[in-house]
Amino acid sequence: MRGLGIHSSIWTMDWNPQAAEQAVSEAVRHGFDFVEIALLKPTKVDTSHGRALFERAGIGAVCSLGLPEGAWPSRDPQAGIDFLRIAIDAAADMGAAALSGVIYGGIGERSGLPPSVQELDNVAACLEAAARHARLRGIDLGIEAINRYENHLLNTGAQAVAMLERIGAPNMFVHLDTYHMNIEEKGIALGILAARNHLRYIHLSESDRGTPGKGNVRWDEVFAALAAIGFDGGLAMESFINMPEDLAWGLSVWRPVAGSADEVISEGLPFLRGKARQYGLIDKRSGT
Amino acid sequence: MRGLGIHSSIWTMDWNPQAAEQAVSEAVRHGFDFVEIALLKPTKVDTSHGRALFERAGIGAVCSLGLPEGAWPSRDPQAGIDFLRIAIDAAADMGAAALSGVIYGGIGERSGLPPSVQELDNVAACLEAAARHARLRGIDLGIEAINRYENHLLNTGAQAVAMLERIGAPNMFVHLDTYHMNIEEKGIALGILAARNHLRYIHLSESDRGTPGKGNVRWDEVFAALAAIGFDGGLAMESFINMPEDLAWGLSVWRPVAGSADEVISEGLPFLRGKARQYGLIDKRSGT
Amino acid sequence: MRGLGIHSSIWTMDWNPQAAEQAVSEAVRHGFDFVEIALLKPTKVDTSHGRALFERAGIGAVCSLGLPEGAWPSRDPQAGIDFLRIAIDAAADMGAAALSGVIYGGIGERSGLPPSVQELDNVAACLEAAARHARLRGIDLGIEAINRYENHLLNTGAQAVAMLERIGAPNMFVHLDTYHMNIEEKGIALGILAARNHLRYIHLSESDRGTPGKGNVRWDEVFAALAAIGFDGGLAMESFINMPEDLAWGLSVWRPVAGSADEVISEGLPFLRGKARQYGLIDKRSGT
Amino acid sequence: MRGLGIHSSIWTMDWNPQAAEQAVSEAVRHGFDFVEIALLKPTKVDTSHGRALFERAGIGAVCSLGLPEGAWPSRDPQAGIDFLRIAIDAAADMGAAALSGVIYGGIGERSGLPPSVQELDNVAACLEAAARHARLRGIDLGIEAINRYENHLLNTGAQAVAMLERIGAPNMFVHLDTYHMNIEEKGIALGILAARNHLRYIHLSESDRGTPGKGNVRWDEVFAALAAIGFDGGLAMESFINMPEDLAWGLSVWRPVAGSADEVISEGLPFLRGKARQYGLIDKRSGT
Repeated sequence: MRGLGIHSSIWTMDWNPQAAEQAVSEAVRHGFDFVEIALLKPTKVDTSHGRALFERAGIGAVCSLGLPEGAWPSRDPQAGIDFLRIAIDAAADMGAAALSGVIYGGIGERSGLPPSVQELDNVAACLEAAARHARLRGIDLGIEAINRYENHLLNTGAQAVAMLERIGAPNMFVHLDTYHMNIEEKGIALGILAARNHLRYIHLSESDRGTPGKGNVRWDEVFAALAAIGFDGGLAMESFINMPEDLAWGLSVWRPVAGSADEVISEGLPFLRGKARQYGLIDKRSGT
Repeated sequence: MRGLGIHSSIWTMDWNPQAAEQAVSEAVRHGFDFVEIALLKPTKVDTSHGRALFERAGIGAVCSLGLPEGAWPSRDPQAGIDFLRIAIDAAADMGAAALSGVIYGGIGERSGLPPSVQELDNVAACLEAAARHARLRGIDLGIEAINRYENHLLNTGAQAVAMLERIGAPNMFVHLDTYHMNIEEKGIALGILAARNHLRYIHLSESDRGTPGKGNVRWDEVFAALAAIGFDGGLAMESFINMPEDLAWGLSVWRPVAGSADEVISEGLPFLRGKARQYGLIDKRSGT
Repeated sequence: MRGLGIHSSIWTMDWNPQAAEQAVSEAVRHGFDFVEIALLKPTKVDTSHGRALFERAGIGAVCSLGLPEGAWPSRDPQAGIDFLRIAIDAAADMGAAALSGVIYGGIGERSGLPPSVQELDNVAACLEAAARHARLRGIDLGIEAINRYENHLLNTGAQAVAMLERIGAPNMFVHLDTYHMNIEEKGIALGILAARNHLRYIHLSESDRGTPGKGNVRWDEVFAALAAIGFDGGLAMESFINMPEDLAWGLSVWRPVAGSADEVISEGLPFLRGKARQYGLIDKRSGT
Repeated sequence: MRGLGIHSSIWTMDWNPQAAEQAVSEAVRHGFDFVEIALLKPTKVDTSHGRALFERAGIGAVCSLGLPEGAWPSRDPQAGIDFLRIAIDAAADMGAAALSGVIYGGIGERSGLPPSVQELDNVAACLEAAARHARLRGIDLGIEAINRYENHLLNTGAQAVAMLERIGAPNMFVHLDTYHMNIEEKGIALGILAARNHLRYIHLSESDRGTPGKGNVRWDEVFAALAAIGFDGGLAMESFINMPEDLAWGLSVWRPVAGSADEVISEGLPFLRGKARQYGLIDKRSGT
């Protein structure tokens, strides 16, 4: 996955054919290179419609998810594997390049204690099996470090790298998110430096999950570090306008953090695209 | 409350006489103007020992807390009032200038939905009664805006001001915290600008709650905004080295975010003191 | 002067009637509230054409200048007075609200030594006389602190305030510039805090004088400090695309610092306007 | 050259044996790995004393300079070569690892026009010859990009790289300076990214040349970019307390930019050392 993409939640949280068509059409209109789809209910997705849609549009797809409580591998690795196989199949059927996100647990999963050896063993076992299946299906698997409140297992880039290196699967990668890094990393660039060549996907999300450029994320540090490590993965813009009900508690956004999807697109996108060009991460003329 | 203080959690989470003596002695040694005490169990505190200790040391005290679930005013305003009266009495008995913090709810309280009109009505009713009692006892009451994951009621400076102005009690004030503002405010200074004259207390806490100066908080913005509004309240350094068990889930720190209390004091304190002096918020010679 | 304006150098350095018409028309088209005109040769300006032009356009004018070597008041206060009287007359004739800039010396003036008592006395004497004349003509006079290389007399906001308070003329004000503050102030906001109520005009200029938003200026600190002091003067965007020959040595820009005037307008203007709105310095709808 | 060093100007501008002994002793006491010596008058230096002093102290030396007007290679390449041979000999005799700085021109050299082809040809010819001589003497040659006011020839990291690659001498390197980069680079890290493997020396200097950590330099961006490119050259702290008379006009510092050498050492050094450790650029225990 390369270039500048966008999480489809800006336009819809329900990836049905009609919503998908609108989202992909908007993505094309704004010059995005790919769309990220929240695959919260992988069995409910019309994958052949999705595949045809992306092929017609000529842009890429990435699927992402957080696991439902019954499938948290920290507690039940096999349940995690079972869920991830279905999700991997759905992603592959749609033609997605990768399945990424909190594929190692739940958004909102917290035991109340630091991650135990057993929990991390369980997660590693689950991800190893999932990576094998993903490889058979020809897609990559990303693990996203998220903040302490949304999960207690992997909060920093360094922790994600440790999990990755323990598994050793060639088709796994680290996925970071500036919103989470702003909370967890000692210097927002240090997550990027810790991940380096393992980093193939990053959510560009503001400190309050609102319009990029209007919060506290130190964007120049982020883009300079990405440029410095020679990052050539996917840059995915992410803001939360439409909160999925299932995730409301985990994400805990209790007020509108951006005026509208229009504001995010008309103000946040030029900001991010400008910075990505300034630091040579996308072509000077891309998306115009 | 004025000058530079420190949350006692850096030295102890159990405010018993012995720990209190050590903490106050350390605070004096490092030139702090006041100490903040977590009053999680207000009936268990030896207040006359505390009062004598602070008087002897010649420094100030501020008490803070988050309410236990049984006393959350959003659900049961009277239970909140009952708990706060006891806490206000304990704080006043210790000679504290104020009781502040999440006095309007729990650290970790989230309904899963935006705050309802009923919840906010309940909180206002509770705080109004508490403010009256605090006035009788001659202390002030602060309400601290905290991040979306730790509470769903008051996340921003503007929301705290709205609650304050609704109640209209002269002895209430807004309490901010840079750790939370880094997540919630659109521009970290905007919380300070929203609170302005209502702002009388601020936690100086790094973006990961570790050593100040080593994270993502835009400190110059914070101090410039404080100087610009003529802030003359208390600046309280706060890092979490000793996590109180009761708060672990609410605070959700799953790894050491600073090397040691020594590191916080030897590196974070000179940093904060230097910035406070640079912006004229404390005397050039204070604390040396 | 209020709202968001622009230095006309982005479109022309030669303020002849034709260039003026184009510049004012562009300024109106982009929703600016005023235009700043470099009055380097005040006797050469067609002031009645200018006045009519601005009146028709319904936007404001500010004149600015740096003095030619023969009129440097540090050496010859009377020569400074003579030049400034002509410039004040021209500015007033054009209907400008103020004459501002390096009205106390030259752009590029450096003695090689710190400012002497005699030099500062001379400058004060000149400005006092100029302020009296400006008052007769109903306009204000601003003094702009600039960096150490462009002048040795007034480099910081605090120094400009000291000069202003020494003179005590009610129609004088401090003029700051983010490009210079980025070099001279210990914390870019400290110049704004030093100037406070004296500050009525500020150049919004990037750290390399190129496109705002693409350099090192800490814009959030600037805007937060402006909002905090209740700034309601003029915000003037300034980038150097067209370098006046007379000023080349003083300004010392030896390469293009922005791609084009178009780039500055299409990328820098939305950035500055967005930040000014975010911090409540201009109306949410202004300029759209 | 590796680790953390300091420009000797903090203690003395006259490198005579007595001053040298004091400076080296202070440098050792504060745990610096090397000292930079301004070699403004290379024939006047007691090189054997210097060599013995550094050997005894067990720390490294780097020499630096700006050329006197008579030796500006842009005008007279041979005069530049003659001066540089003497300086290279002095540096080598002292046991310095490198001669660096504005070895391609004067501090304060400006033609009033962009660099001409002839000027750059002259500079290249001079540096090529100097590099050959330096190679014979076993030392490296660095070229420091400085700001537009101090020189019109090389203002950015990219320009320094272009000059270096044109010459192609293996013993030449790029030398950057955060003070200058804060003015010249579009994003302070971009100079570091442009220089990458050519970068072997960097001046850590605040935006006003005062105490590091108290100005506008975005230090986290600087250190993150250095860490990201795997920088392992010399980090040289530089503040101007003692202004050399010869350089006063070129450097144009007209007021004290730091309280004292003590302030720079007691506040600026812990700040820089802390950041260098945070980003893994020096050993955790170095200098303590």
